[in-house]
Amino acid sequence: MSYITMTKDELQREYALQTERFDACKAQNLKLNMARGKPGADQLDLISDILGCFVDPKECFTDGIDARNYGELAGLPVARAYWADVLGCKASQTFLGGSSSLTLMHDVIAKAFSHGLLHSERPWCKEDVVKFLCPSPGYDRHFRITEFFGAELITVPMTATGPNMDVVEELIKDPQVKGIWCVPKYSNPDGIIYSDETIRRFANLKPAAPDFTIMWDNAYCVHEFDGEFVPFADIISLCEEAGNPDMVFEFASTSKITFPGAGISVMASSEANIAYFTKMFGVQMISHDKINQLRHVKYLKDKAHTLEIMKKHASVLGPKFRAVAEILDKEITPCGFANWNTPKGGYFVSLNTMEGTATRALALCEEAGVVMTPAGATFPYGKEPADSNIRIAPSLPPVAELEKAMEVFCICLKIAALEKLLK
Amino acid sequence: MSYITMTKDELQREYALQTERFDACKAQNLKLNMARGKPGADQLDLISDILGCFVDPKECFTDGIDARNYGELAGLPVARAYWADVLGCKASQTFLGGSSSLTLMHDVIAKAFSHGLLHSERPWCKEDVVKFLCPSPGYDRHFRITEFFGAELITVPMTATGPNMDVVEELIKDPQVKGIWCVPKYSNPDGIIYSDETIRRFANLKPAAPDFTIMWDNAYCVHEFDGEFVPFADIISLCEEAGNPDMVFEFASTSKITFPGAGISVMASSEANIAYFTKMFGVQMISHDKINQLRHVKYLKDKAHTLEIMKKHASVLGPKFRAVAEILDKEITPCGFANWNTPKGGYFVSLNTMEGTATRALALCEEAGVVMTPAGATFPYGKEPADSNIRIAPSLPPVAELEKAMEVFCICLKIAALEKLLK
Repeated sequence: MSYITMTKDELQREYALQTERFDACKAQNLKLNMARGKPGADQLDLISDILGCFVDPKECFTDGIDARNYGELAGLPVARAYWADVLGCKASQTFLGGSSSLTLMHDVIAKAFSHGLLHSERPWCKEDVVKFLCPSPGYDRHFRITEFFGAELITVPMTATGPNMDVVEELIKDPQVKGIWCVPKYSNPDGIIYSDETIRRFANLKPAAPDFTIMWDNAYCVHEFDGEFVPFADIISLCEEAGNPDMVFEFASTSKITFPGAGISVMASSEANIAYFTKMFGVQMISHDKINQLRHVKYLKDKAHTLEIMKKHASVLGPKFRAVAEILDKEITPCGFANWNTPKGGYFVSLNTMEGTATRALALCEEAGVVMTPAGATFPYGKEPADSNIRIAPSLPPVAELEKAMEVFCICLKIAALEKLLK
Repeated sequence: MSYITMTKDELQREYALQTERFDACKAQNLKLNMARGKPGADQLDLISDILGCFVDPKECFTDGIDARNYGELAGLPVARAYWADVLGCKASQTFLGGSSSLTLMHDVIAKAFSHGLLHSERPWCKEDVVKFLCPSPGYDRHFRITEFFGAELITVPMTATGPNMDVVEELIKDPQVKGIWCVPKYSNPDGIIYSDETIRRFANLKPAAPDFTIMWDNAYCVHEFDGEFVPFADIISLCEEAGNPDMVFEFASTSKITFPGAGISVMASSEANIAYFTKMFGVQMISHDKINQLRHVKYLKDKAHTLEIMKKHASVLGPKFRAVAEILDKEITPCGFANWNTPKGGYFVSLNTMEGTATRALALCEEAGVVMTPAGATFPYGKEPADSNIRIAPSLPPVAELEKAMEVFCICLKIAALEKLLK
């Protein structure tokens, strides 16, 4: 029965019931974690044969290059070709990073501040104010990079088809607005796939700032856990066609294809941007880990084979996401005070609970031994005015633990909502 | 016979002779490279069994950590312990980087400029002028990092015991002088081991700048190719004892122990500095490649076993350096216009030819198909006023090619000197 239509007596009875359930959970001294988009050990087991796929030194040679030695700053040609295949861009538009695409994103923003981008009039650190658009809910680590360098973070509301483009198109008329963070496929945390129309409007933006930059984090480009691969437009060629060839930097990695934090990462952009950054990257490195590049190309082969490997991940992730959906549907749907998404890929479920109760609900979770992403984390500066959005990351725990954690979570959502209604 | 005492006729006959040799070399259409400190394929073959040393997923677990997943920003405890053993510091004073220590060095300087160091009054980008000391000849990639961020590079002369410390102690009275680059063991390119007295004076510096920083690149800490391992003082504890606990950052990597650019790197400093940087590094990464950390610990084990592996490298490098010394001794010693070092470790031979002739000699080398590090590269801004120092990097070519390249090189040195004497 919906909380919204309950009488005070009914609410009090419900509160007593849920408090009793909460106390019973607490007595179990649980220690469960749904805080981060980490794959579970069961998932990692499925791809751990990558460790043994490249042991023969004779296989170190590719395109006349000895991958064991220095060189090839932008990456091995076979690794650049791999990413071009996955992302649908050209190999010449790619630059291989180390094991983290987050570091590549940081480096783009860091160099924008210290030296400026290709079309910057001056380094961003010489600007009076730098503003950066943060579609929210979004990824806290994105927002923190721009915050770290002193940018002013501006919240842009998310819609079912991506960021609200009317708002974006209005905000970029301000020349102090220098860029926007995007997770275009299975957005973190909403799991939204940007619509063709949204992508088209992105490519056709006419920002006032000549160095306006779209940070296109395609983290979940092949990460379906429910159903077939969903084809996705190549933003780089779309920007080029729209006369904005240097406006976008795309990022991806194998962190959720092979090993998190021990895979290979890529940045893709116009050849002019890649040339500009390759020169600057040459100051800080001689070349990235080409042995790991080669290991990954041997293991993943190409996009088609990568999609086969993603089916393995789906076999573990799918049941976890279905468990989350089922428990929410059973526990929360009847109460009518929250809504959530049911994505078919990515790593998160985004839930909006009764306004003003997210922080309280997560404090209760912690009290009962269930760690979640902190309330507000999905908004700039870690603060959501409505105190409503919660990011659920179901990938790490085994299903049995996940079900337990979700039960506790639902009880906490209810208690926090009831407390507010009874106030 | 010494060029210095030759008559004009003798010089002309010698010039004709060397020019004839040069033309004969040119006719061979050589393509030889002594430009960079890259190990040769023969050397890499000796350690390529590292590829197969870690293939069993069951071995991914260490100290209760699954190395396949995110986490442990500062590095696996076993990897931190490994570096503490090699460098003689504490594990708590280490932070593991990716595959490049150069990137760690860049990041320290980058963050000094963007945010400031632990004892900075303000970020270096807010200072009117930042000056950085560059003992020369030195490593071009060091100098370029500070140049990239706009620091003024100040040359400090090298002596047989390290940088001229009288000059250093005088220069650091200027609060605009923020740091110094050092390669303390087998310095690049001189191959000098800093004396105990030099190291003591470094640890006891009393700089005017509160955030003065010693960039201690211990790149060749275990890299003897002639004779036994030379023990080396731990600069971190020496600085601590001298009341300068946060003044030094030490760097090292396995780039010349296992695979160049595909190994593991480390930064070592006071616990306060490591804590300060770990927080900032947390903005740009979740964790570095722990699989590669574990692979390296399995393969290298500890300092003692690493030294055994370095003996293998020495078996290849030793003959190459001996060939260089022999050819220089035979070709150049009698001519009396140049001097050079004969190091027992590291990757370079540093030669000082007749002043004003290094650029010309290397242009001749290029004409004859022998690529060397450009003249001036070992000095700030790539310019040496005396035009005398040349860095020889004998590690890459097989001995037969190396001998050929050295012959060409000696002929070119002679022609350039003769041209000057005959002017």
